Amino acid sequence: MLSRLSKQLSLSASTSRNLLFQKWFSPNDGTSLWSCSFATQSGTSTARQSFVADGSMTDKIFASYSVYKGKAALSTSPMLPTFRKLDSGGVKLDRKGSIMLTFWPAVGERKYDWEKKQCFALSATEVGSMINMGPQDTREFFHDPAMLSSNAGQVRKSLSIKPHADGSGYFFSLNVVNNILKTNERFVVPVTAAEFAVMRTAFSFALPRIMGWDQYSNQPLGTAHKNPSKVLPHLTDSEWDK
Amino acid sequence: MLSRLSKQLSLSASTSRNLLFQKWFSPNDGTSLWSCSFATQSGTSTARQSFVADGSMTDKIFASYSVYKGKAALSTSPMLPTFRKLDSGGVKLDRKGSIMLTFWPAVGERKYDWEKKQCFALSATEVGSMINMGPQDTREFFHDPAMLSSNAGQVRKSLSIKPHADGSGYFFSLNVVNNILKTNERFVVPVTAAEFAVMRTAFSFALPRIMGWDQYSNQPLGTAHKNPSKVLPHLTDSEWDK
Amino acid sequence: MLSRLSKQLSLSASTSRNLLFQKWFSPNDGTSLWSCSFATQSGTSTARQSFVADGSMTDKIFASYSVYKGKAALSTSPMLPTFRKLDSGGVKLDRKGSIMLTFWPAVGERKYDWEKKQCFALSATEVGSMINMGPQDTREFFHDPAMLSSNAGQVRKSLSIKPHADGSGYFFSLNVVNNILKTNERFVVPVTAAEFAVMRTAFSFALPRIMGWDQYSNQPLGTAHKNPSKVLPHLTDSEWDK
Amino acid sequence: MLSRLSKQLSLSASTSRNLLFQKWFSPNDGTSLWSCSFATQSGTSTARQSFVADGSMTDKIFASYSVYKGKAALSTSPMLPTFRKLDSGGVKLDRKGSIMLTFWPAVGERKYDWEKKQCFALSATEVGSMINMGPQDTREFFHDPAMLSSNAGQVRKSLSIKPHADGSGYFFSLNVVNNILKTNERFVVPVTAAEFAVMRTAFSFALPRIMGWDQYSNQPLGTAHKNPSKVLPHLTDSEWDK
Repeated sequence: MLSRLSKQLSLSASTSRNLLFQKWFSPNDGTSLWSCSFATQSGTSTARQSFVADGSMTDKIFASYSVYKGKAALSTSPMLPTFRKLDSGGVKLDRKGSIMLTFWPAVGERKYDWEKKQCFALSATEVGSMINMGPQDTREFFHDPAMLSSNAGQVRKSLSIKPHADGSGYFFSLNVVNNILKTNERFVVPVTAAEFAVMRTAFSFALPRIMGWDQYSNQPLGTAHKNPSKVLPHLTDSEWDK
Repeated sequence: MLSRLSKQLSLSASTSRNLLFQKWFSPNDGTSLWSCSFATQSGTSTARQSFVADGSMTDKIFASYSVYKGKAALSTSPMLPTFRKLDSGGVKLDRKGSIMLTFWPAVGERKYDWEKKQCFALSATEVGSMINMGPQDTREFFHDPAMLSSNAGQVRKSLSIKPHADGSGYFFSLNVVNNILKTNERFVVPVTAAEFAVMRTAFSFALPRIMGWDQYSNQPLGTAHKNPSKVLPHLTDSEWDK
Repeated sequence: MLSRLSKQLSLSASTSRNLLFQKWFSPNDGTSLWSCSFATQSGTSTARQSFVADGSMTDKIFASYSVYKGKAALSTSPMLPTFRKLDSGGVKLDRKGSIMLTFWPAVGERKYDWEKKQCFALSATEVGSMINMGPQDTREFFHDPAMLSSNAGQVRKSLSIKPHADGSGYFFSLNVVNNILKTNERFVVPVTAAEFAVMRTAFSFALPRIMGWDQYSNQPLGTAHKNPSKVLPHLTDSEWDK
Repeated sequence: MLSRLSKQLSLSASTSRNLLFQKWFSPNDGTSLWSCSFATQSGTSTARQSFVADGSMTDKIFASYSVYKGKAALSTSPMLPTFRKLDSGGVKLDRKGSIMLTFWPAVGERKYDWEKKQCFALSATEVGSMINMGPQDTREFFHDPAMLSSNAGQVRKSLSIKPHADGSGYFFSLNVVNNILKTNERFVVPVTAAEFAVMRTAFSFALPRIMGWDQYSNQPLGTAHKNPSKVLPHLTDSEWDK
């Protein structure tokens, strides 16, 4: 297993990414943790600045769970869904949430290159698949970030989660093949059973929230109407009405 | 198993429902996800409009977890309970919540007919039964939507959840026999283990909420009274008082 | 097992409780669900009325999970802890919460006598013991409601939870021996595996809340101070400060 | 096992701590539960007073889960993380939270000496490791409270969690060797399976909160903007934008 990992990592080392804006910083400075698009936008931060300008950054939260290992680091964090108001007064989930996994390579003793990061957004079902893993189970997910655009098929991402031979954890491997940039990057992060238990518990906590189901919570007592005709109307039809 | 499924689905194809207002839309447009009664109200939406008018739609949330398969789709979503204020100042659960399962048939490549939907509201105990399933367990639930009316026994709904032979998930099957309309509809949706894990986690999250138990949460610090004689009085009697 | 249950129930039938204020109502009317002391207060409701008067009833919530069986019914509901403000500005848990189990006997077809109820308040550790049960495990808890008073030892309550022989659920049995009133009451309620799964999930949800641990939640974004010297100070000392 | 425990406890009894300010009080008075540094600050409470003065004590919560056993007591409680506002408008986790374990010795019948307490702050990953334990698993964690200071290596703390021989729970043992004070303290607290189940459930509840992940919750309906261009913007970039 280890010899295979080394081979995979040598692929990563042979990639030829633009290092012009390379910096050595940890994700903890909170500047660009989620903008996986940052490093690829022609070396400028224009897109991100306008992103800030339109207010979308306002409510950003930086509280990822990260593990730093010899060859690469892995950061995990929920991405909440978006909602929109309906004319009827309801609220509808607009864009589904996810758990974002971000990998970035080690470039020295305890130094990691955040500019070279690659990310993989686990859908609700992929999260379900992961938190359901037994100690000897394996998972593999494939994404095409440009799936519905003219660039479909040009970038292929695959995430695999494979158990350590002794059951002491899993290898998380991300492979990104970019036919436009002619790059092929691979990151491998060994995750201990304890770290996986944190992910399992935290992802189980986050799953209903990325699905938007935390909206289905009852109003607290204090806000209850006293008008009997409209007291706490949540949902009043059901299969029994049919 | 598959041959039996096909037979069941042919039953569904032979039904003779009113197609007058049939539309091809996904549940994501948020217009009528929960109004399982919509399609059966004499082809008009009068009932639903008055429903909106009296304010009951105001707080509606549309964030279902749905799976789309070859013959039908299945959507799941919590339905919160309703409460009413007591003269004593307390709040009492008035109508129990549920997890609503909605099935609707495929009518072409990635096209599903929402007008032909049928729903099944899982009670708290049925949710407990489902999230407790082992990989080889089977469940079957029976409902009579008109149970307490003069139409009792005229419509029979049964939901069965049966494991795939290889343990890779479950078949969710809904059968609705309507003796008034002379219809017999059957929907079968295969649910993968990953999708079932999402349901198990999300239903476990939702269960205390459909029971109204999220009302049993302590007031946050900021709202604590400073009057020592009435500081945060939640419940002050117990078995020890007897 | 069943013959033994019958014998236990005959004990209950032979009790000689005061039936003066006996009523046939379900707990759903929300009037006195938690006042286990109601029926024993000399046949008057004085104590309860003053209880209302001092405001303690104000925030009462009635959303129990109940099962109704042939010989008796069982209702379960969280009882939140109480807190008090400290001069230092902190908040301290004052009285621990519990999960209240209330048993009351059947007195006819689908009729139960709420006046004859007996209750048992599960502590956090007893809840932990219960939600940790395997399908063949047994639990037995003993309480003395007058433990620290001059009546200590006069009333003994014991709750036992024993598996059905076929693993399909548990028998919940409450025995109350009152040497003052010379009564010996026993309630036995069979709980299915599905009902137990609801309890396990709902009790696991409630456990941190009856412990007061839901107070340990981070302030939402919107309330964050902008003053850099006092930004969201939660807890700033730790073992590392030593 | 018991003979070994006795030996360990004799070590604790032979320590030579300053007893000048020794008091016999339970942690329930809420005065200094978390200030593990209190007893070591030259016998004065100056540091703590200034701590109160700068407002940091304001929001303190005292709702620990504690077990009192023959030789020592163990108290557990979450310590929330701290956050800081970013110029960009986001909020970043500043200092990670933990689950604080505090041990303090018995000094008589139901009397415990809080002044002699020692604490151990479980990180998120250590909490993951603990809640993942099987009935026969063992854990051992090592901390150096002065890790990054000039006193590094002078104080060594080790926490071990070892199963009872009969699977009925675990021994929690904390050993603190202080080369500066020339002390070597050991605390051993047997924890029953029921108490461990409470910890497992409560720690699983607290884990996302000490990680700051409860910040990733959707805004409730009532606060939703009606401005279509800025409706509930949570996170709008993702891997798909790349």
